[in-house]
Amino acid sequence: MSAFLNDGFVADGEARLHGSDLSMQRGYALFDFLRTVHAQPLFLQEHLNRFFHSADALHLKVEKSKEGLTQIIHQLIQQSGLQEAGIRLLLTGGYSADTYHAATPNLLITCNPVKTSTPELFEKGVSAITYQHQRELPHIKSINYLMAVWLHPLLEQKKADDVLYHQNNIITEFPRANVFAVTKENILITPAHNMLKGITRSFILKEAAAFMEEEERDITVDELYTASEIFLTSTTRRVMPVLRVDEQMVGDGKPGVVAKKLWKVFEKMEDALIGRPKP
Amino acid sequence: MSAFLNDGFVADGEARLHGSDLSMQRGYALFDFLRTVHAQPLFLQEHLNRFFHSADALHLKVEKSKEGLTQIIHQLIQQSGLQEAGIRLLLTGGYSADTYHAATPNLLITCNPVKTSTPELFEKGVSAITYQHQRELPHIKSINYLMAVWLHPLLEQKKADDVLYHQNNIITEFPRANVFAVTKENILITPAHNMLKGITRSFILKEAAAFMEEEERDITVDELYTASEIFLTSTTRRVMPVLRVDEQMVGDGKPGVVAKKLWKVFEKMEDALIGRPKP
Repeated sequence: MSAFLNDGFVADGEARLHGSDLSMQRGYALFDFLRTVHAQPLFLQEHLNRFFHSADALHLKVEKSKEGLTQIIHQLIQQSGLQEAGIRLLLTGGYSADTYHAATPNLLITCNPVKTSTPELFEKGVSAITYQHQRELPHIKSINYLMAVWLHPLLEQKKADDVLYHQNNIITEFPRANVFAVTKENILITPAHNMLKGITRSFILKEAAAFMEEEERDITVDELYTASEIFLTSTTRRVMPVLRVDEQMVGDGKPGVVAKKLWKVFEKMEDALIGRPKP
Repeated sequence: MSAFLNDGFVADGEARLHGSDLSMQRGYALFDFLRTVHAQPLFLQEHLNRFFHSADALHLKVEKSKEGLTQIIHQLIQQSGLQEAGIRLLLTGGYSADTYHAATPNLLITCNPVKTSTPELFEKGVSAITYQHQRELPHIKSINYLMAVWLHPLLEQKKADDVLYHQNNIITEFPRANVFAVTKENILITPAHNMLKGITRSFILKEAAAFMEEEERDITVDELYTASEIFLTSTTRRVMPVLRVDEQMVGDGKPGVVAKKLWKVFEKMEDALIGRPKP
């Protein structure tokens, strides 16, 4: 594997940053993550747009253009020889002289094998617990997952796969995924505020609009408990049914109709990419 | 300058971590920071205790003993030739295989020149603005200063030196310092909850108890506005008068009696370390 660091390709072992970098000093960095399908980056423009948005919001400058980054990403994919890869773009606060103020950002782009969901994992679904927490600066894809990683032992203890954050009983997001629910009235609902609007989330909203009513609005934990269907969406998991929340069964405890439909939408979209020439 | 990385001393340029480290992936790391006076580490035991407490709280194991770390720190100080140095101990979530779960922690200890406060800076004091924010896991000295660094442009715009966090009008802490106030009744007050209890804060509470009444309790922003004196305490700044809060003058706008007394306590304590043999 190789990587791209600031202004050139480096061997994976050299994809290192000095300890004075503001990411290690103050957790000050942002990233984006996308995957390839048949060696083609999925939703590349959307991810690059969000990467630049995050950088702008954290007052950091991306020295490369979107075209430049696109070229680097294609080269990394080619070098890796991977069909299914995860591309991560990291932009940090740079080597800070006073360990507190941002300097020239460091840019690190990596390309690694990625595990995505499978039909078997989709059928199995996941279980979640709710937990009161509001991420700071939730519209920015910062590297701050302190709470998420800190909660791993609690998840083990509760035998849950993931945690769904809420603030004062209003649900927001999973640490790495968005949440959707289907109401008894067959309306697709998803939170509107205080979370990161995922690129898969946007795709789902667009696709589901073709066959059902949608609402982006506040959802309480109690409303979630009565949903006929819940699922999460993310880059690697696409659509993943949530079959238990806080030890309560969701619907009949099996993947729901809407999640199944959306899974098929993904299959179709990804199949269409086979053998498509690179842009 | 040299540094200590995991199991040996390295040149400063080699004090680097691979991008797969959980600090850069998920902001998952903790640290502690102490300074030397006349080449002797100040409050070393207290800092090591807190370092181990933070590691424990983040479910990370420090492979070295306190005695081992003490020895490494003394060697780094000696190698640096510095009289006044800043020692930083960083413990990260390690090189994570799945970029999300903690692995074997990386330990990086550095020793660099440090700028501490001076009598001139003490006289000048600082200005602060209040800002609503609650750090997650505030009792842990994690590397998460995302909000603090993000707020730098606001501080510039407001021509303020630092930001004092409050949550629902109850003040907590500065990003890198604790806050104290002196009431009109001459009682020294400082927040009790939802912040990091600094080692300088403990020292101040112990020393000030000799000459005044103290209360650790909730303090509202409004109460702060009417204080006759406000100061912050930190490792590098010792005691620093806060002379303006949200554009309101504190007391008569000059360093107060209590802050001056405590500054002298520091001078005396640090002078006593000259030529003291190393432990």
